Amino acid sequence: MGKQIQFWFDFASTYSYLSAMRIERDAKAHGVSVSWQPFLLGPIFAEQGWNNSPFNIYPAKGRYMKRDMERLCAERNLPLRRPEEFPQNSLKAARAAIAIESSDQRADFVRAVFTAQFGSGRNISDDAVLTECLVEADTPAELLIRTQDKDIKTALFAQVDQAKALGIFGAPSFVVGDELFWGDDRLDSAISLAAEI
Amino acid sequence: MGKQIQFWFDFASTYSYLSAMRIERDAKAHGVSVSWQPFLLGPIFAEQGWNNSPFNIYPAKGRYMKRDMERLCAERNLPLRRPEEFPQNSLKAARAAIAIESSDQRADFVRAVFTAQFGSGRNISDDAVLTECLVEADTPAELLIRTQDKDIKTALFAQVDQAKALGIFGAPSFVVGDELFWGDDRLDSAISLAAEI
Repeated sequence: MGKQIQFWFDFASTYSYLSAMRIERDAKAHGVSVSWQPFLLGPIFAEQGWNNSPFNIYPAKGRYMKRDMERLCAERNLPLRRPEEFPQNSLKAARAAIAIESSDQRADFVRAVFTAQFGSGRNISDDAVLTECLVEADTPAELLIRTQDKDIKTALFAQVDQAKALGIFGAPSFVVGDELFWGDDRLDSAISLAAEI
Repeated sequence: MGKQIQFWFDFASTYSYLSAMRIERDAKAHGVSVSWQPFLLGPIFAEQGWNNSPFNIYPAKGRYMKRDMERLCAERNLPLRRPEEFPQNSLKAARAAIAIESSDQRADFVRAVFTAQFGSGRNISDDAVLTECLVEADTPAELLIRTQDKDIKTALFAQVDQAKALGIFGAPSFVVGDELFWGDDRLDSAISLAAEI
């Protein structure tokens, strides 16, 4: 399997966008491969008593996140256009990501979805947007139908359960061996650890 | 006034310990001075509906924070010994910090209190511990009596109000001009901005 970092993300997570756009390049520079792990924060937040994004529940935190994202995207030359709805429904995108078996195509799809949402402000629960992202990742657009398959739905439930078992409480999160790292700010540390193992 | 960074901290905050121990050195290296701003997270958390530290309310987050602090303190050669009680009552320490007028002595006191608490696991609501910290900062230990003065109590309330007005929702926070930064992870960015202004 070699040196590997698990990248746990929810498509609705702003800070996951930051990590998604750089993790492969940064990991590769250290000889580390990325295992892309889509999951859903909703059920995890629900267990914490939240029925919405903490950025909506706690307005000061939400205002801060918006400004922080502006600064970080400017620094990294990443496009940023806030979608009207936040958080978006990321269920179908997560299922589609799971349905893509090739790791390279999955990575391309993940970046396309994050860019559509946070770079262009588009709605990622819209089939037309997801179809474009699948095409961009060189996967058959028909794959969207797979998001209704029972095995894919079950696989996403299993991802959420595994995230809980790993102690994940937010996104992005990174897992290297027994170590959990939370937040784009910890990505460099997580990659360094993966490179050492 | 020159180039300046405001450092907003609560003595009970673990991540504030990390910043307290490095901010002066790192800021000075960029020609930036530090304005030490003690406040209390309690009233701010209460407005968010929390009557305890989020690290206690959300156990997965709490477990993560402990491990994250272990890793970061090890990297930075900082002593870490978890106090039995968490969070500690930081009221008296915050009042004492406000009562110290000299910025250098205040800085020394702040570092002494954080080190006593998170480096040695001691109880910072204990007068004996605070007295030692005052002596270590070269201030008269009698200053502890000032924590009962009305003007000091009022000044701390004013700090909390100002923190809220600045949009602060956690600690450590840094303010440079109109920009707010949250978390030890943003300290370098905050100092860089202060150096540019």
